Amino acid sequence: MQVIRIIPITGIPIIREGDDLGLLICEAAARQGTPIEDGDVIVVTHVVVSRAEGNVVNLNGISPSEFAKTIAENLGKDPALVEVILRESKSIVRMGGGHLIAETKHGFICANAGVDKSNVPGERNVALLPKDPDLSARRIRQRIKEITGKNVAVIISDTHGRPLREGEINVAIGVAGIKPIRDRRGERDLFGYVLRVKRTAVADELSSAAELVIGQADEGIPAAIIRGYQYERSEDATAKELIMPKEKDLFV
Amino acid sequence: MQVIRIIPITGIPIIREGDDLGLLICEAAARQGTPIEDGDVIVVTHVVVSRAEGNVVNLNGISPSEFAKTIAENLGKDPALVEVILRESKSIVRMGGGHLIAETKHGFICANAGVDKSNVPGERNVALLPKDPDLSARRIRQRIKEITGKNVAVIISDTHGRPLREGEINVAIGVAGIKPIRDRRGERDLFGYVLRVKRTAVADELSSAAELVIGQADEGIPAAIIRGYQYERSEDATAKELIMPKEKDLFV
Repeated sequence: MQVIRIIPITGIPIIREGDDLGLLICEAAARQGTPIEDGDVIVVTHVVVSRAEGNVVNLNGISPSEFAKTIAENLGKDPALVEVILRESKSIVRMGGGHLIAETKHGFICANAGVDKSNVPGERNVALLPKDPDLSARRIRQRIKEITGKNVAVIISDTHGRPLREGEINVAIGVAGIKPIRDRRGERDLFGYVLRVKRTAVADELSSAAELVIGQADEGIPAAIIRGYQYERSEDATAKELIMPKEKDLFV
Repeated sequence: MQVIRIIPITGIPIIREGDDLGLLICEAAARQGTPIEDGDVIVVTHVVVSRAEGNVVNLNGISPSEFAKTIAENLGKDPALVEVILRESKSIVRMGGGHLIAETKHGFICANAGVDKSNVPGERNVALLPKDPDLSARRIRQRIKEITGKNVAVIISDTHGRPLREGEINVAIGVAGIKPIRDRRGERDLFGYVLRVKRTAVADELSSAAELVIGQADEGIPAAIIRGYQYERSEDATAKELIMPKEKDLFV
């Protein structure tokens, strides 16, 4: 019986631009008595990655376009915020009921193109998504390897609403060292029936599992260790595998 | 630092109609040295619930309607299977590319109205979703309480594909004893910013976390214990809270 542990990494200081996130994660994990181990999956919320990478914008410095002003009025949003959202977007997927769902330049479809006000210091500051979340994940993974010698997987997570279901869950927007989808087609089930449609989005499930300890805004836990999960390793993994191609999607 | 553990419940026998699932879960958990504790979240895959409740249909006994035959031909599916799917549905949401996405009589929107071939014994047998998954969850919870005296939450999970993203994740279709959504609107973040849109679908995240140990079809693990998660208790919870009302949904 293989038990999986979800360990919050507490005591990480408030992240500022230029901080060495990999180092701070290793130090905090060691300090609380759960040093990083081989095979750990480290889930990091995107906001601290964006802050460390300086991917934060002050809305006071933004001049909204005429289009942004119109949209902002229609949706009841701040025009400068809408301008930032539009600059992050390559297309608008849905608009209405106060919501602006956009396709980001990376290809993620999410509310406000991932532009996030929460857990960002400064009254008028917003965090953008990391420019290349897979690269961010690879850098943190590499740094953890340099510091500890341990081979881990890293997932950058984000909180997404979704069509059809209420509430938000956490999903993966960047991965390193782990295949984000476990393809089980061709495996047999308990009764020998060959599984035909089973492709499990394990990186999303790991992100959701980590949120169970991360989701305590008042405590400020930006990262978690998932220990004991047997994942498929990959050196060239990308979270883009989790994005459904438009021609396949029945809902876009 | 509160660590969450995801414990697979191994050694549950093949479930047959009429089996006392609550009892079998308690016995298997105790046998492997992890007896049920107060505050545990027990996640059970819907297929074993359907099997225990006799909610299994043999396709050989089904006469497909003319409409079912037409749809089956268009989608490349078995006409008897399509007939069963249509009988479980109250509306069709999308059709195409070999997929049939339906709204079940409970209101869930999912592929094939949740009719499932995998992990069902018998060449031509398929499992339907439980008739009332919340009631199934409440019964298992009550039985666990009777047997062990412990107060737990129970979640019935199902594997769902989703719009916009590749791969499947596990979500909750029935709950007992736990609020499925943690409403954090009004709470403050790390920097005092009031969270405005945060409603976390914790029952879905718990289902996904459990899948990390359940998702081993060859070992046949139908249930897991999630231990150490602080959830909001509720005696009248329903997984219907996780279904987005159509008038709110931008994608239906």
